[in-house]
Amino acid sequence: MKVFPMALLVAALAASSAQAARPALDEQALATAATLRDQAKGGTGAYEIVASLTTEIGPRMAGTPAFDRAIEWAQAKFKALGYDRVYLEPVTFPQWQRRHESGSVLSPHPQPLALTALGGSVGTGGQALEAEVVEFANLAALSAAPAGSLDGKIAYISNRMQRARDGSGYGPAVAARRSGASEAAKKGALALLIRSIGTDSDRLPHTGMMQYADGVAKIPAAALSNPDADLVSAMLHGGQPVRVRLDLDVGWTGANITGYNVIGEIRGREKPSEVVVIGGHLDSWDLGTGAIDDGAGIAITMAAGAMIGKLERAPRRTIRVIAFCNEEQGLYGGKAYAEAHKAELDLQQIGAESDFGAGRIYAFRANVAPEARAVVEQIGEVLAPLGIANDKLEGGPGPDIGAFAAMGMPWADLAQDGTNYFDLHHTANDTLDKIEPAAMDQQAAAYAVLAYLAAESRVDFGPAPVTTEK
Amino acid sequence: MKVFPMALLVAALAASSAQAARPALDEQALATAATLRDQAKGGTGAYEIVASLTTEIGPRMAGTPAFDRAIEWAQAKFKALGYDRVYLEPVTFPQWQRRHESGSVLSPHPQPLALTALGGSVGTGGQALEAEVVEFANLAALSAAPAGSLDGKIAYISNRMQRARDGSGYGPAVAARRSGASEAAKKGALALLIRSIGTDSDRLPHTGMMQYADGVAKIPAAALSNPDADLVSAMLHGGQPVRVRLDLDVGWTGANITGYNVIGEIRGREKPSEVVVIGGHLDSWDLGTGAIDDGAGIAITMAAGAMIGKLERAPRRTIRVIAFCNEEQGLYGGKAYAEAHKAELDLQQIGAESDFGAGRIYAFRANVAPEARAVVEQIGEVLAPLGIANDKLEGGPGPDIGAFAAMGMPWADLAQDGTNYFDLHHTANDTLDKIEPAAMDQQAAAYAVLAYLAAESRVDFGPAPVTTEK
Repeated sequence: MKVFPMALLVAALAASSAQAARPALDEQALATAATLRDQAKGGTGAYEIVASLTTEIGPRMAGTPAFDRAIEWAQAKFKALGYDRVYLEPVTFPQWQRRHESGSVLSPHPQPLALTALGGSVGTGGQALEAEVVEFANLAALSAAPAGSLDGKIAYISNRMQRARDGSGYGPAVAARRSGASEAAKKGALALLIRSIGTDSDRLPHTGMMQYADGVAKIPAAALSNPDADLVSAMLHGGQPVRVRLDLDVGWTGANITGYNVIGEIRGREKPSEVVVIGGHLDSWDLGTGAIDDGAGIAITMAAGAMIGKLERAPRRTIRVIAFCNEEQGLYGGKAYAEAHKAELDLQQIGAESDFGAGRIYAFRANVAPEARAVVEQIGEVLAPLGIANDKLEGGPGPDIGAFAAMGMPWADLAQDGTNYFDLHHTANDTLDKIEPAAMDQQAAAYAVLAYLAAESRVDFGPAPVTTEK
Repeated sequence: MKVFPMALLVAALAASSAQAARPALDEQALATAATLRDQAKGGTGAYEIVASLTTEIGPRMAGTPAFDRAIEWAQAKFKALGYDRVYLEPVTFPQWQRRHESGSVLSPHPQPLALTALGGSVGTGGQALEAEVVEFANLAALSAAPAGSLDGKIAYISNRMQRARDGSGYGPAVAARRSGASEAAKKGALALLIRSIGTDSDRLPHTGMMQYADGVAKIPAAALSNPDADLVSAMLHGGQPVRVRLDLDVGWTGANITGYNVIGEIRGREKPSEVVVIGGHLDSWDLGTGAIDDGAGIAITMAAGAMIGKLERAPRRTIRVIAFCNEEQGLYGGKAYAEAHKAELDLQQIGAESDFGAGRIYAFRANVAPEARAVVEQIGEVLAPLGIANDKLEGGPGPDIGAFAAMGMPWADLAQDGTNYFDLHHTANDTLDKIEPAAMDQQAAAYAVLAYLAAESRVDFGPAPVTTEK
């Protein structure tokens, strides 16, 4: 938490007590929010938006022609939904491509393997790589291996991610994906295989970003589907050496691409320069159609903004819905937004990104200035009939708000039920059929309530305790 | 049902009443069967057998080197399990190959498609085929289309299979797979696409055999995964023409292959030439590792026979466990067995194949001579504590017993719970992780009880009413 000088703190408390004379949220604002919430049961249009994005665009990895089409789609959709202003902000990032990938066990029991290269990985150099696999129970076990002990081998990390509503199994498991290749290379390995970071048992591997450490050889890295990981482990437990063939034609092209954050705004009636930011990320991985990651977040927040835009009276502040560019490969859109607007930190009232699938929201948390806690409590009361508890202790602003949150931007977390999220995350199975339309309406309702009341609040939400969580 | 001449019927009834003096199943046999059943809870080894087959062989489509390895595996496994006699019987069939397959939507919304060629299909002729898709709600709607109405088009049948414990949704749905290509060709179509015959929503298409009608042009046929079928339908419902690209390098090679039924026997103590036949099919489709189709059936019946083989006293008749060759592409192993042994019809006491996954057995039915109904009732009483009801009205002998059943071989049906079977059937997702070890033990116990008591019965099961069901 940031420590404020005493003089500022006293001033803040004085301001807070001055504002107490007039309620932060008046009865009209609260009644309008309740109406937004209750009307959502009749349909918010959120499902139709994600259906449009997945059907008309589908996979839209940043740096591909499909992502360019998604940018066009998002602008057209904001306009069709009646947003007051629709515009682009440039985001530059390096281009990574997946061209071809395959793998198999060569011996002792020849079988094909369902695998996928990790994002950011180099390829196998135009030819297949064949080597013996050495299994490690987790990243720590690999890191503890002696230097040189993997010369000429493929390191394989086999630990399985645990299922949890809040996705808390992801952090411990994903370290193998992010850092495993360089840890393996330090021991002499030619390549890295990991068990997919996922909770399913489908023959559909999970991709996701990896990173190379500086000064370490860059070796190719891929994820086996969970059943294929079981298979390789079973063969290894049979006691015979297991040789695997990897053929990965993937990698960085060297090109820098300029994409865009696509932004739609509902203009505020009193303080149009102050903004409440909600959004999701427009890009997806290339394997699925990006329904839950993050077509859902795009749709939920676009629909929420549109609901507010249809009110007879605009909110006090502007609602800014951002379809962020290239979250998957390094939070490029979120970082670009923070960089472009860092001089306007005090105008960023509060931010919340929806990027955890399409499961119903069950909890709410906000990170705001102390004098805004009472407003957060009021917002929580309006959210409660949606089945949302205002008791969340963990959480964060969502990946693309993170860069600005680290500068002190206030944020809210509408926590989605992620019990099944990691069955589908970053796989070919991330498709529209996995989304329940009514759950989309519940979420759009929650974002509409949050955004509208935050825009109506007469108390400022910042400066917030600086956080680098999530 | 076959109608017997009155003289034979009278003779049969007389024989039945003569046998009534001595019980068909004595107390010792019933007690031994109950012991087999109850010991199974401690483990039958069935799960270990299917784990071995899927790990050490994996996909084993008939006509591939892996299927040759599976034949070696089955012989070795029978011997390791202590069977008295292990031998091969030849089975000849034409060779079909899947070399490469891909597909995509070209317009209005370019996207890749997850699809797989149907078994027996011809390819697209060394180049991709591009054409507009025309949707039909089901096979009947396609058949009703005017001749020539699909000239230059791809016919697409979109109906979805219904889920049911007994798999009764399969029959109505699978007609599109079996007959759709020729129906489409009659209307001028260049190719057939179907929604996968499956109850899942995974991005893993279901293959399976199709057939060409005589005198009709042979056009390529493929199945879309269910989410991809949803996608194509959604695009079509958008109103714009949908053009699809299919690139299928598959087909009949012209070679005839000789494979083998692999047979293991537990020799009977009194009537060794009379056999009780149980088994499964050794081949699988090429996409998965053939765990539930039909590694499970192989394992359940191999384990059941092995349990009987370990008894201190052998059963009266021989237990013959058959790992059938090439069920998937046309019941070749079952037909070859019936042809090779048709002169010994009266020695085939009863047959039962396990080929419906790895779900627990919930019902029992037998098709036998009237005088053997009482024995069937007794067997049902021993099965009952396993949760198996003797009340089944529908069912059949299993695909590879079918040819012999059509000649009058008696059969039994130990019906497995197939609620989830068609989520996985003929897909890459047919892998070991989908099998519950305890369910394998319940099934092996049931097959052991059935086979042992059928072998002990002092009443013959035939001649049975001839059936061509299932």
